[in-house]
Amino acid sequence: MKIALDAMGGDLAPWSPVKGTLQFLQDHTSGMEIILVGDQTILKEEIGDSVPKGIRIHHTTQVVTMHEQGSKAIKTKPDSSIVQGINLVKDGLADAFVSAGHTGAIMATSLLSLGRIEGLKRPALAAYIPTATGGKIICDVGANPDARPEHMLQFAIMAAIYFDHVEGKPHPKIGLVNIGSEPNKGSDLYQEAHKLVKKELPNDFIGNVEGRHLLDSPADILICDGFVGNTILKFAESWVNLFIGQLNKQIMDKRSYQMVARMLQPVFTNLKKLYDYEEFGGVPLLGVNGVVIVSHGKSSPKAVKNSLLAAKKCITENLLGDIQHAITEHMVVVN
Amino acid sequence: MKIALDAMGGDLAPWSPVKGTLQFLQDHTSGMEIILVGDQTILKEEIGDSVPKGIRIHHTTQVVTMHEQGSKAIKTKPDSSIVQGINLVKDGLADAFVSAGHTGAIMATSLLSLGRIEGLKRPALAAYIPTATGGKIICDVGANPDARPEHMLQFAIMAAIYFDHVEGKPHPKIGLVNIGSEPNKGSDLYQEAHKLVKKELPNDFIGNVEGRHLLDSPADILICDGFVGNTILKFAESWVNLFIGQLNKQIMDKRSYQMVARMLQPVFTNLKKLYDYEEFGGVPLLGVNGVVIVSHGKSSPKAVKNSLLAAKKCITENLLGDIQHAITEHMVVVN
Repeated sequence: MKIALDAMGGDLAPWSPVKGTLQFLQDHTSGMEIILVGDQTILKEEIGDSVPKGIRIHHTTQVVTMHEQGSKAIKTKPDSSIVQGINLVKDGLADAFVSAGHTGAIMATSLLSLGRIEGLKRPALAAYIPTATGGKIICDVGANPDARPEHMLQFAIMAAIYFDHVEGKPHPKIGLVNIGSEPNKGSDLYQEAHKLVKKELPNDFIGNVEGRHLLDSPADILICDGFVGNTILKFAESWVNLFIGQLNKQIMDKRSYQMVARMLQPVFTNLKKLYDYEEFGGVPLLGVNGVVIVSHGKSSPKAVKNSLLAAKKCITENLLGDIQHAITEHMVVVN
Repeated sequence: MKIALDAMGGDLAPWSPVKGTLQFLQDHTSGMEIILVGDQTILKEEIGDSVPKGIRIHHTTQVVTMHEQGSKAIKTKPDSSIVQGINLVKDGLADAFVSAGHTGAIMATSLLSLGRIEGLKRPALAAYIPTATGGKIICDVGANPDARPEHMLQFAIMAAIYFDHVEGKPHPKIGLVNIGSEPNKGSDLYQEAHKLVKKELPNDFIGNVEGRHLLDSPADILICDGFVGNTILKFAESWVNLFIGQLNKQIMDKRSYQMVARMLQPVFTNLKKLYDYEEFGGVPLLGVNGVVIVSHGKSSPKAVKNSLLAAKKCITENLLGDIQHAITEHMVVVN
């Protein structure tokens, strides 16, 4: 199995991708090859002179920076790690591509190079939300700021299959983000989506999930349009740091608090870790015709390792085939 | 000045409205009358036999419960505290109405009884978001799950005037909730809203605010449609309790932590209070032709007192007149 990894993507590249690859290869040696896609001079500086077994460098000369327009990367940066990495998948030279780089560029390039799964209207971006009772998947988190009810049904189908693959839970519970629990609540879009998902996935759909229950509802999958999902996700990512910052500030105000707080440090560290999105592995760009894993821009080596693991699972467990099958099954309503 | 207060509305009624009224009247005696709208038997049990100076009871026999359809309250519960309280405003017998009851019923009844400010397309619900650097107003938080760009411009105009009135800050900074900082980001609705608000309020509009900056952006006012606003608000309300719950749980796991944590209790209490939405006063239903303050369902006596204070400010500072003026000024684009 060959996984192409964007070695120039993310805030901590190339250190984090290289370190994460080495960690991954400690546990997964047999038949694995990680193709580090990036500038060979920079990468060799990071790795050292002798490239370890299981690693190959695919030399590229360009990098898509965060300020560029993602949709144009395929034209303006044809020799970037993102475009080249996705091309490796397209050409059958890699089984998956993993990147913590420019999400918009990954999405646009994947869509143009790999195309969509047959019958799939709109690829979607999912994200992992850690909660006290285990993780949830929220989808879409930004690929489709304007979505239609039939797109949201397909998000639900794809996210459920992915959740089953990674968490080993068949028929995860699906909830629709909404502003009230009754089916007739919300915008026209969400009322229609509610009807459609309920009709097509009657056994797995548990109904609407309000903002106050996003973290403690029994739903494993939260479905929404990309505007709502992106706003929720980014907000959720920010508040833990804000809150812990204020906790620190208050503690620092008083000397006696400081001494006491030091003894509670493990508790704070644990909590921060529980909600640290930078620790989690990536989630696939659902619906494109190839395994493409998008990781958090601040991915740590551990997150890179987990992203490689996610890619491996998607390949061995045939995520694409299963999505294709399910999309076909629910095709009638969508067309 | 006469303020009608829904004495049956909210989870803590009638105790909290009565207690909050008494607290309010301690500081504001001259010329104030609070009309407690509710069942006189229940209210007299709460108040005691002699009704204090400054309080009058307006007897009603019905209550709108949280499970009812709000839009039907005016027909099904004509003698409820909500319908009767709003009628007092309509008939000129009260200058404002304050309620912690069924938000949907307050909105629908206000709209039907009081009507809209001339030229105003859609009344909107605002909410106060406490942050480390002071409060923000977010609008709309649920009245309009389907909004148009011109509605969002009017939300911005109304929320800015209200913010000035209560916080004493003319020309507050206005931000548009969005999934990217560039003007061309977001759904069609938000791209259009961006253009329109920028054109009409060029000096006050500071552009898009992403989910991650909802709490720390320089914007005093966050504008969005009611679906997005409601989801954000309810999510924001929930996470502090969830987080503090988990902090407690981890601390309880170890005896040595428990002893130490007791010493940090004031810090936790402070933080919880900072984000305790139940402590804050209500915010007006913006755009209806009367002062109607909607408070949190779990309003404490302090919150009731603050809601009465907000009502008083809206009346003395002529909120309705100022909104009418500003709406007329920006009328051309909206029609």
